[in-house]
Order: sequence, then C-alpha cells, then structure tokens
Amino acid sequence: MIDIPYRSALIIGVGPGISGSLTRLLRAAEIPVVIAARHVDKLTPLVDQTGAIALPVDASDAGQIERLFAETDARIGAPEIVLYNASGRLRGPIAELDPSQVEQAVAVSALGAFYTVQQAAKRMVPAGKGAILLTGATAGIKGFALSAPFAMGKFALRGLAQSAARELAPQGIHVAHVVVDGGVRAEHRPDPPDRPDSTLDPDAIAQCYIDLLRQHRSAWSSELEVRPWVEKF
Amino acid sequence: MIDIPYRSALIIGVGPGISGSLTRLLRAAEIPVVIAARHVDKLTPLVDQTGAIALPVDASDAGQIERLFAETDARIGAPEIVLYNASGRLRGPIAELDPSQVEQAVAVSALGAFYTVQQAAKRMVPAGKGAILLTGATAGIKGFALSAPFAMGKFALRGLAQSAARELAPQGIHVAHVVVDGGVRAEHRPDPPDRPDSTLDPDAIAQCYIDLLRQHRSAWSSELEVRPWVEKF
Amino acid sequence: MIDIPYRSALIIGVGPGISGSLTRLLRAAEIPVVIAARHVDKLTPLVDQTGAIALPVDASDAGQIERLFAETDARIGAPEIVLYNASGRLRGPIAELDPSQVEQAVAVSALGAFYTVQQAAKRMVPAGKGAILLTGATAGIKGFALSAPFAMGKFALRGLAQSAARELAPQGIHVAHVVVDGGVRAEHRPDPPDRPDSTLDPDAIAQCYIDLLRQHRSAWSSELEVRPWVEKF
Amino acid sequence: MIDIPYRSALIIGVGPGISGSLTRLLRAAEIPVVIAARHVDKLTPLVDQTGAIALPVDASDAGQIERLFAETDARIGAPEIVLYNASGRLRGPIAELDPSQVEQAVAVSALGAFYTVQQAAKRMVPAGKGAILLTGATAGIKGFALSAPFAMGKFALRGLAQSAARELAPQGIHVAHVVVDGGVRAEHRPDPPDRPDSTLDPDAIAQCYIDLLRQHRSAWSSELEVRPWVEKF
Repeated sequence: MIDIPYRSALIIGVGPGISGSLTRLLRAAEIPVVIAARHVDKLTPLVDQTGAIALPVDASDAGQIERLFAETDARIGAPEIVLYNASGRLRGPIAELDPSQVEQAVAVSALGAFYTVQQAAKRMVPAGKGAILLTGATAGIKGFALSAPFAMGKFALRGLAQSAARELAPQGIHVAHVVVDGGVRAEHRPDPPDRPDSTLDPDAIAQCYIDLLRQHRSAWSSELEVRPWVEKF
Repeated sequence: MIDIPYRSALIIGVGPGISGSLTRLLRAAEIPVVIAARHVDKLTPLVDQTGAIALPVDASDAGQIERLFAETDARIGAPEIVLYNASGRLRGPIAELDPSQVEQAVAVSALGAFYTVQQAAKRMVPAGKGAILLTGATAGIKGFALSAPFAMGKFALRGLAQSAARELAPQGIHVAHVVVDGGVRAEHRPDPPDRPDSTLDPDAIAQCYIDLLRQHRSAWSSELEVRPWVEKF
Repeated sequence: MIDIPYRSALIIGVGPGISGSLTRLLRAAEIPVVIAARHVDKLTPLVDQTGAIALPVDASDAGQIERLFAETDARIGAPEIVLYNASGRLRGPIAELDPSQVEQAVAVSALGAFYTVQQAAKRMVPAGKGAILLTGATAGIKGFALSAPFAMGKFALRGLAQSAARELAPQGIHVAHVVVDGGVRAEHRPDPPDRPDSTLDPDAIAQCYIDLLRQHRSAWSSELEVRPWVEKF
Repeated sequence: MIDIPYRSALIIGVGPGISGSLTRLLRAAEIPVVIAARHVDKLTPLVDQTGAIALPVDASDAGQIERLFAETDARIGAPEIVLYNASGRLRGPIAELDPSQVEQAVAVSALGAFYTVQQAAKRMVPAGKGAILLTGATAGIKGFALSAPFAMGKFALRGLAQSAARELAPQGIHVAHVVVDGGVRAEHRPDPPDRPDSTLDPDAIAQCYIDLLRQHRSAWSSELEVRPWVEKF
C-alpha cells in the first residue's frame, strides 16, 4: 500500500476521469475521500466502487463551497488533501459570446478555485500541514483563439496557484498546479487504434498527483505539466 | 505632430497617470478621445486641459460598458483605439479575504476587460482595423504572496490578451498587453531624490503605447514589459 | 529628424535586412555607424548608400570582437549603441548533427553575443550610458524539433540578455532582447501576393529598435516580441 | 523494490549529491549504473557502497562523451536511462570575465549535454525506448546579474531539453528537464537548525527523478521544478 502523508481528501469537480482515478488511488491507500460535483447521481458508480462520500456542490458559489467543507469536516475530518478539478469552458468569437456565460465560465474555473483554496487554507494553516492540488490546462499557459473565457479562467487559476504557493508553502502547505496538456481518455473518447496513448490516461494523471502528494517538503514542485508522448506542443 | 493611424480613442479606467498621459498625447495628435471612469468629476482637469470627453462607467458591469461604447459611437464615432486601464487590487492572507471583494476585484481587472474587448471587436472586426491596449502588471506574470485576487485578475487579463491577439490580429486588429513593472509616478508618490526615475513616468509609459499604435502590421508586438532602470526583477 | 539619445553605433552581423534597415535609420539621424560582418564585400551597397563604415569580423572569435571594438573606437568613438544580429542555425535530427558544427552554431548565436556585450560593457559602464540590442528568435522562447543547436544558441542569448539587463540597467545601460517571430522579408523571400505583410518588413523591425533606443529610462523594455499580423503563434 | 521500466543507467557529472542519491535508488532497484565524472577517485565511496561502475570523462569533450557511451555499452549494455548532471558556473561582472572561462562554462553546462543527448539518441531511437534526464537550475529560467555564463549555459540546456523532447518523445524517448531551485544539501552545507529542510535533500530530488522515470507515456512531464518549502521565488 502506498504511503501518503495525509489522512483525508476532498475532491471538487468531476473531470473526465481524473477525479475518479484519484479517488480510487486514495481509497486504495485507505484515505477517506469526499467527492463533490454538481450532479451527485453521476457519482454513484464511483461511490459504490470506492466507498467515497458524494456531496453536491455548485463550485461557483462561495457559500456552497463553505458548506461543503463544513460537511466534509463533519464526515471525515478537515480535509488534508484538496483537489479542485472543475472548469468552465466556452468557445466562440469574442464578439459573439454571451457576457453572463463568460462570467459563469470564469467563476467555475477560477473563483470556485479561490473559494476552495480559501476554505482549505483556513483549515491547513492552523494545522501547518496540507496539500492543495489545482487542475490546470494548456489554456492557462497559452491563450488560444476562440477560447477567451477558458484562457481567462485557467490563467487566473495559475495566478492563484502561484500566489497561494508563495503564501502557503512556508506555512507547510504544498500547493501544486498541474497543467494537463492534451485530451483525457474517456469512454466516449478512446485512443485511435493507430495512436496508442495519444490521450492522457486518467490513471496516469492521478499517479502524478500521488507523486506530488508524496514529495518531501525539501523538494516540492509547484507546477507539473503532463502530456501524451505524441502530443504536439 | 505624430502620425497615428487611428482616428478616435476610448480610454477606460483612469490609472495613476497613464490614462491622462495617453489622453494628452492622443489629443496632441488631434485624435478625439473619450475617457471613462467611475468618478467623472476627478477627470475635470484632464477634460479642461485636453478637450477630451468624460463619461461615467462602472467597468465591472457589462451593460454599462455596452452603453459606454454606444455613447462613444455617438460622440466621436466608433473608437479605433481602445485602452483598458482599470484594475481591482485586494491584499491579504487568502484565508482572510472577503469572497465578494475578491469577485469584485477579478471583475474589474478581467471581466471588465473582456466586456471592453468584446465591444471593441464588434466594431473593429467589420472595419478590419483597430488597436486594443490592455494595461497589465507584473502580477500577471508572477503571482505574489498575499495578493491572490490581483494575481487572478491580471493573469486572466493576460490570458484574454493572448487569446484576443490570436483571434483578432489576422483580422487586422492589433491587441497589445503592456506589463507595467514598478510603481507609476504620481503626485503622492514622487521619486526619492537619490533615486531618480526609479518610478515609471506616466508620460514615458504613454509614449510606449503610442509606439505600439504606430507599429506596422508586419511587425506587431503583442506584449511589452516596461520597468524603471533601477527596478529589481 | 528623429531624436536618438546616442551618438555612435556598431552593428554586428548582417541579418536578412534588419541590420541594413537600422543602419539607414541611424544614418538618417546623422549617427555614425560601423557595420561588421564576415564578408565585407557584401556590405558595399549599404556603405555606398549610407556612408557607414564596414569592417570584417568573425563574431565567434573573442579576439576579433575585441579588435573590432578597438577599431570602432578609433573610427567613430566608443559605440553608444551596439546591436548583435548574428546567429548560427543548423537543422537536423539530434543523432545526425556534427558536434563541431553544433559548437560553431552556438558560438555564433551566443558566445559572439557575450564577447560583444562584454566589450560594450567595458565602454558603457564607465560612461554610465549606452544601449545594447540583441536580435533573438522564437527559438529562444520555444525549442523546436530538429533544431536543437539554434534553440541552444537563442536560449543562451536570452539568458545573456536577462543577466546583462539585470546587471547593467542600474548602471545606465539599456539592454533589450528582440524576439523576431516569423520570416524576415527579403528579395529572395517576398510576401505571397495573397498574404500581404505576412513576413516581417525589416524597416518595421528596425523602427522597433529605434523606439527602444528612444525609451526613457523610467520605462525601459528589456524584451520585445514582434510578429506579422497573420503569423500563427 | 520499486518497478522502473528501464534496465541500465549512465549518470554524467557528479553534482552535490543528486547523482549519488539517484545511483543508490537505481542500484536498490537492481539497475546497473555507470557513473562518470572528471575525477573518478572522488567516486570511490559511492562505487564501494553501490557497486556502480565509475568511468572518467571530461563532459565538455565530444570525443570523450562518445567513448564513455561506447565503454558503457560494453560494460552494462546501451544505457536506457541517461542523466546529465554537469554544469559550469562562473560569476563576476560581464566586463571582467575571462572569455575562455566563459566558453568552458557554457561547454560544460550545455555542449556536454548536447553530446550526451546525441549519444543517447543514437541508442534510444532505434530501440524506441529510453529516458533522458537533464538537471537544470533557476538560472535556466531567469538570468541573474553577475552570472551571465551560468545563465547562458542553463538557458541553452533548457532549449536543448525542449527541442529534444519535441523531437524524441514521439519516438518513445522521455526527455525531462528538472529545475532545481535552491541550494542542494551537502555535508559542507547543512540546513540551519532553525530552518529545517530549507535546502534540497538530494534523496528527495532523486526520488523526483524516479517518479519521472516511472511516468506512463500517456502523461509524461517534460519539465519539473523543485524547491524547498521555505524558498523565496
């Protein structure tokens, strides 16, 4: 069994497989896990498989994030690992986007991450211990055409990650931003037969999160970029 | 008189001197200018000095930005130069910040810029011409401790700038993000006598904006960093 | 006539047009210019046209750079503007490159720049004044496949530029690294008729160098990226 | 015993502890290891402790690197893991550095890495498998004052890493550049008692290299930054 130096985990936002894979790895290490998403019923198979606790949350709402942490405290204790994995994507020419949808996309990608980091910090700073993982994207490093809201949200997330790492690392809290560069494999998005491993295997990504969680504080990474071997970059 | 290939300008957000200096340079080139800020009465000296038109706006409100552009159209024609110079700064430990103030800071630094770029694009894309300038900060490149909301806003602005540049440049619109690295000189913040030019002279910054406006489309810059000669970086 | 706050210039390495264009602009401002390249006879038209002085140099040889500066001192006085515009490019699979050609490519792109910056610093530091311009490339920001030696040389140049800017700016010397992102227009490489200005006009690039030279020390840029409006990036 | 998907290793350049720690971890996984450095006698304790084979090399000499690989082939088979850990550091004002020492510093940090990557590629490309690790430094990301040669070498190394990753990853070879940001702990440089883990523990760094070696090709990292929890950045 892998040795992970934390005793409880909260995962917010069920991405295409990453959250599920991480939940399985953490549960295999006997760490209690709360998983939170907008639609909890989608989490039933994962709950059945792993014994994780599923709770509903709209990550773009500060009050709901606050209540989610309180409920997590009550169910498994204050989370020592927190992963924010939600994001709001919206594509289209700048001139044609609906401003309120842009606001919502930025709120999910970035403000929700702030509320989450804040609630995590409130618990981890007094404890002098904890790990905060933030799932980023290439869009947080390079702003692509026809994708301004996603660029805004993921850039903001990276800014938050850097600021939080500088503030919280000396207080014993490991903050890491993971740049997922490529498509994540999913049932509806399998690898083309002639290009094996050309999408990111969510289990492989989750293993990288575990590696980060196991890093010694004398050599912490605050950012990690992962991409398939054949991905152009 | 400097030759600038645009005929009208809208400047949103009166920063510590940059907007004023740019207004003066544009007016000296006989370009009509609308300046917009939350408190229009503060703009009276600039209006008196330059003949610019001052209009009120809360840049964090999409509807107000839309109306500001409509009013600008009516007063000086569709703006061919648009500068977004507003930003929301908020300092403090992550655990102690007020979420609603964080939202407001990100809205002013980044969402207001989006609304502005959108309104500019609606006018410039059909015309196949225009320049959009966005005032950034070092916080958009590096997220500092105790300054998460400003990092989020300025990172998001940079993501917007990159995405907009990639989308709009091939349509003839010059998008440039200017990273102001250092304190901007102001009446309440003069240079220390033993460190001349250790703050950024707003006239010097504005001249850089003019240089960008005059660049030929075969050699456009999409990002420019400016800092005092003695600034540590 | 443009006002440039320097009185003499040395340009090393005649790139595809940039050095020629800058020579013309500086000469138009009545600044004496020495141009240096491996094959001086290629410079005859430029000398005839502008009255610049041409001197031979192998930029990868420290002794030759030292002698070039001494000769420049004698002819036009210590150069207050120095541009390093030479680069060594070499393409091919890593496994197949000739190590001695790799060494030579890195020497031209990067070591020659070091010798140049060093000679410039020896003159400019005591004077407390000067400008050093370094012509970079996208390859200095992003290392492309099948182009390792060019990536090494241009990355090293950027490292030199940053280090020199941090060391020399507080001594009154403006160091700027210009990232030329795209093909530079030349007689043998004209624009496709259906894509006007899709290559960089060397006159437009040179104008950006002039803009840098005219920046006030309270707002110096240490890096500038220029690319055609339709260039993918 | 850790499962590492490679069967032989060559480590060039014995840094302050990193190479020793990695040798121990690889040997514990029963992987044969050749270690190479300028002064082989310094390696005796490591050889005695681990059974690694020590060979002499001047990494700045292409021919010596070629012969080192040939000797490694003969002793343990073609290396499937190659770490380049040598670097040349030289400090001082730009105007005062000795050009030939600058050339040597760049040769050790960057050209030696090229020779190494080249020899590795010659073996790994036909095999369709292998891992190349390059030890970088903060100086490869940010060029510091009074340290131009180190900045040049480490920037060039990063350019090489990016170019090699883009060329070789789709051929099955994992290239990773590790940015070591901070001092590495050593006997002569222990942690201050009041700042535990304020230097990088070489065992902790080596564990990060092992994590990279174990990454699945669907989620490879090409760059990893590691720093102590209390390091300013």
